Amino acid sequence: MSDQLTQRILGELESLVLIDPHTHINPHSAASTTLADIMGYHYYTELAHSAGLPREQIEEPGLDPKEKVGRIVTKLGALENTVQVSWLLEICREFFDFDGVALTEDNWEAVYDRAAEKMAQPDWEQQVLKKSNLEKVFLTNDFDDPLTGFDTSLYIPCLRTDDLVFHFTKAETRERLQKATGASVSDAASFRSAIGSLFEHFTKNGARACAISLPPDFSPRKIENSAVEPVLQSVLRGDEVNTVDADTLSCFAFWTLAEFCAEYSLPFDLMIGVNRRVYEAGVFQGQDLFDKRTSLILYRELFNAFPQVTFPISVLAQTSNQELVSYAWIFPNVITNGHWWYSNIPAFIEQDCRSRLQAVPKTKQVGYYSDMYKLEFALPKFGMYRRILAKVLAQDFVIDLGWSEERAVELGRLNLRGNVEDIFKID
Amino acid sequence: MSDQLTQRILGELESLVLIDPHTHINPHSAASTTLADIMGYHYYTELAHSAGLPREQIEEPGLDPKEKVGRIVTKLGALENTVQVSWLLEICREFFDFDGVALTEDNWEAVYDRAAEKMAQPDWEQQVLKKSNLEKVFLTNDFDDPLTGFDTSLYIPCLRTDDLVFHFTKAETRERLQKATGASVSDAASFRSAIGSLFEHFTKNGARACAISLPPDFSPRKIENSAVEPVLQSVLRGDEVNTVDADTLSCFAFWTLAEFCAEYSLPFDLMIGVNRRVYEAGVFQGQDLFDKRTSLILYRELFNAFPQVTFPISVLAQTSNQELVSYAWIFPNVITNGHWWYSNIPAFIEQDCRSRLQAVPKTKQVGYYSDMYKLEFALPKFGMYRRILAKVLAQDFVIDLGWSEERAVELGRLNLRGNVEDIFKID
Amino acid sequence: MSDQLTQRILGELESLVLIDPHTHINPHSAASTTLADIMGYHYYTELAHSAGLPREQIEEPGLDPKEKVGRIVTKLGALENTVQVSWLLEICREFFDFDGVALTEDNWEAVYDRAAEKMAQPDWEQQVLKKSNLEKVFLTNDFDDPLTGFDTSLYIPCLRTDDLVFHFTKAETRERLQKATGASVSDAASFRSAIGSLFEHFTKNGARACAISLPPDFSPRKIENSAVEPVLQSVLRGDEVNTVDADTLSCFAFWTLAEFCAEYSLPFDLMIGVNRRVYEAGVFQGQDLFDKRTSLILYRELFNAFPQVTFPISVLAQTSNQELVSYAWIFPNVITNGHWWYSNIPAFIEQDCRSRLQAVPKTKQVGYYSDMYKLEFALPKFGMYRRILAKVLAQDFVIDLGWSEERAVELGRLNLRGNVEDIFKID
Repeated sequence: MSDQLTQRILGELESLVLIDPHTHINPHSAASTTLADIMGYHYYTELAHSAGLPREQIEEPGLDPKEKVGRIVTKLGALENTVQVSWLLEICREFFDFDGVALTEDNWEAVYDRAAEKMAQPDWEQQVLKKSNLEKVFLTNDFDDPLTGFDTSLYIPCLRTDDLVFHFTKAETRERLQKATGASVSDAASFRSAIGSLFEHFTKNGARACAISLPPDFSPRKIENSAVEPVLQSVLRGDEVNTVDADTLSCFAFWTLAEFCAEYSLPFDLMIGVNRRVYEAGVFQGQDLFDKRTSLILYRELFNAFPQVTFPISVLAQTSNQELVSYAWIFPNVITNGHWWYSNIPAFIEQDCRSRLQAVPKTKQVGYYSDMYKLEFALPKFGMYRRILAKVLAQDFVIDLGWSEERAVELGRLNLRGNVEDIFKID
Repeated sequence: MSDQLTQRILGELESLVLIDPHTHINPHSAASTTLADIMGYHYYTELAHSAGLPREQIEEPGLDPKEKVGRIVTKLGALENTVQVSWLLEICREFFDFDGVALTEDNWEAVYDRAAEKMAQPDWEQQVLKKSNLEKVFLTNDFDDPLTGFDTSLYIPCLRTDDLVFHFTKAETRERLQKATGASVSDAASFRSAIGSLFEHFTKNGARACAISLPPDFSPRKIENSAVEPVLQSVLRGDEVNTVDADTLSCFAFWTLAEFCAEYSLPFDLMIGVNRRVYEAGVFQGQDLFDKRTSLILYRELFNAFPQVTFPISVLAQTSNQELVSYAWIFPNVITNGHWWYSNIPAFIEQDCRSRLQAVPKTKQVGYYSDMYKLEFALPKFGMYRRILAKVLAQDFVIDLGWSEERAVELGRLNLRGNVEDIFKID
Repeated sequence: MSDQLTQRILGELESLVLIDPHTHINPHSAASTTLADIMGYHYYTELAHSAGLPREQIEEPGLDPKEKVGRIVTKLGALENTVQVSWLLEICREFFDFDGVALTEDNWEAVYDRAAEKMAQPDWEQQVLKKSNLEKVFLTNDFDDPLTGFDTSLYIPCLRTDDLVFHFTKAETRERLQKATGASVSDAASFRSAIGSLFEHFTKNGARACAISLPPDFSPRKIENSAVEPVLQSVLRGDEVNTVDADTLSCFAFWTLAEFCAEYSLPFDLMIGVNRRVYEAGVFQGQDLFDKRTSLILYRELFNAFPQVTFPISVLAQTSNQELVSYAWIFPNVITNGHWWYSNIPAFIEQDCRSRLQAVPKTKQVGYYSDMYKLEFALPKFGMYRRILAKVLAQDFVIDLGWSEERAVELGRLNLRGNVEDIFKID
């Protein structure tokens, strides 16, 4: 009975048209062209490498896409238990008519060819969007992205700012900023004004969020121009800066971004907790990990200073979920945002989803985003989340609290779609 | 079958007469007089504020109670998913004959009026106690509370000591202490003796516990008189003290409290992990949060130094639960105590309850306290806990371990009632 | 239906012949001789002490085994809820024909006598191994263990190295090393070569792992000979060393162990997170606890430096599980290893087992080890784990992902047995 209830709720949630509020889609090449685009997703390359496939075999220069898939397939057996492989199989079944229980060395070539055939159809991108019930897809754009040549009402720009905050010490970043803004940074004021022109450019082109990923020990604070000026001058001269000075510059840039988020009414997505390049011999995008010893108390000054800025927050460590729930329960400007990366597996999503639904105002929760690089992943990833959400709605609300199914579905609708519209101001 | 089993166990647990071992009840005004007393609970004001209601509207000076409720009701829809609103509805249903699914702008006035009518009955307090199966209720008394004018066998005094430990640097605290004890503090010895006279006063009046809430970075240690003396003299002169000196003074006061707990055989409730005033623009009592980076290892010296003192411990961070389980499993003087504040939602209670029942001696667990400010909340809060406890007893003990229902109910009885009597020495 | 499915999977898992990859068995006295060997396990003594039994009564010099059991039995009622007591009862039922619901002051003597009778049978050890389906049992050997007088193909040696890393500052450890290797340590080079000869001795005698338990703040790093030399000379002179120098020496010894693990192709079991002697007045082996504020990021340099060494990792804090899952998902040389000590209760195992199966390659997980001191404990401990594993396989794989039962059982087999063979190279 509880199972049938869950299925009915799930059926309703599956009929929803989605807006995916965070992805890494390239709008000029949103869908895949071969199965190598699917299986080149870092989840498969890093897990295959973790299970013993040498990086050199995965990332051999000039490697043919089909050969690459063939090599990864040799390790799929060792990964068959992972939820990530279940996404791959769901993609193969839903999009490529696959009906096996596993992708093996015996059957993968037929799937590869069938996929290539389907992907070659001129309307493949539209087919994927339609089958996945996707209406709009948020992007992750470099700050110097011209934002031209694609439909910004379908692919919604988002200003990604990691480079500005953590890599402005690199000449390359400064050159990119100069090129993008047409103005050179010579001091704190001109740095600020360059950032301002990025906001102008992005919001003119329909951007709906500013975003950044942050290491676990980052603690934003306001830095006065006078305090950052000597550091900035040193950086502009090309000097090496120590970690204290680099942190001062990072905090200045970050705080400036928050100020412009306020000015341009842009939500500021904070993705908290990643240490980059922990495993330097790992595959591309398979090198980052985390230190769970972090706290949202590090953001105390920020949340208090910017009551007018909405902060949708993702935490990498599952042990940060209760803090996120509690901070969103107390701070009007803190929003819970999806289930990120190492927390994006059913065992953690279920606990996190449950606690958020029990204690955070329903209007302050963005249920899920796919974080995908290729369009085909929205279907299995949202599918995974919806099944968990349906289960929680059935058990915690209909059964335990006596809610009607309609009301539970309505809560799910807000969680999956309505809040994305409201929080990111999608018309 | 498992559901019916759970229901039968729940039925037995519901028949228990309770002692609530931690509340903030004002014994001179224990029950509510209007629905504004219920909905003025910080859970509703802070959640309504989090969902967008300005603090100024909630806390407008001279605001009429009915108007206040009307304003909060406008935001209840946004909070309807929270467990806190489920408590509110259960109160309205159980006490005020409400039969709707939600409190809305259309129906709240009738409920308000009906509540006012019921609350005006001269025996309302007794009605609530009876309907809630409440026999005794622990208080949280300021150290200078005269403890007069109420029945201390019903409302059991508890010496709350936050001010003595963390605010003795304030002149106001020192004046209150002088007034309460009739003696002035001029050095470490007279500070100690003033504290001693508080214990004398409280235990004479039936106090059954000393209690304190502690920030996540507090680490108690023994301070010699000679080490605290210069700090104390500086404080008594009205000097500003630095954080290191303030911590020395806090540790001295705290350790002195533990010594008197030993002398007077009083359990010392430690409520560990709260950061005060993190969100300073928040509503009254809706400003505190936490830093999960804390550990019970900070209490190592204390637990070793006072084997004769019982420490019922509450942790604010759910990630501290396993430490609490493990420390209670090893230290004879450590007791697990309830599910506190940000950990007091079903998703966390269930995990914490389960692990405690699996690994802590059954005699060392205080299952639940309501933490309520008004009597009406015991019913839904204990109700929530009992439903979870019944589920865990049914699944983990009767089904998984083959226990009889009677034995499982007996375990639940100890957890809910028996241990409170034994640990706090209630006759 | 789901229950029957779980039971069928469990039945298959129960038929597996096990290799227990971590125990504290004494191969010269592997099985118990009286019930005091069973109830002398620190879980019972420390829990009985926690529930009020004075250490002096438990550890009275010259105490008769039967009298000791009688004393502990007086406290079993207070512990009857714990999973540890459920192991005890399962042992009494499965091995000693006990059919009661609890061991009490009224019935324990008969059980004691019956146990003594069974244990006196000459083939008792073989009976236990057979009934427990145990084929091989890993030991925890002191570095100076001669490894003689037992069958190393049944009881597999494992080089335990805590003393070398954390107690080389003690003269006793240095004397033991000299005696074991026949060579004296006079500098870094001879310390290294002494450690090398231990690896030679252990691997010649069939050792299949090197192991160590580590405090939560330990952070391994490479130490050059020149940096350790002055510290080592100071230690060899018998000087007291400060904590910084002691840490340098510990890191040197640890890193040297990892180098020899590489040279001898031995997995290096890391058991991370224990603080020793936190409760110094506790019973034997009942004094250790932990500080959850630790992170696997502390092992970053180690994991990168030794790609050729396999690190099966156990974490003491349950809040470290997600890090372990993520590090094993990224680093090819990190393996998840069992459920250790304070994390070894069903409430935690279930969450940890589920997340590992969902995100770590199936070939990189050692499901469980018993950590036992006496053979009789393998049966209830593996029994507890298998029941949880069967439940997770049924729910997450067969029901949620549509796997066949056969495939789910195959995954369980790998988790319980196959990976132990592969990772520890058992023929």
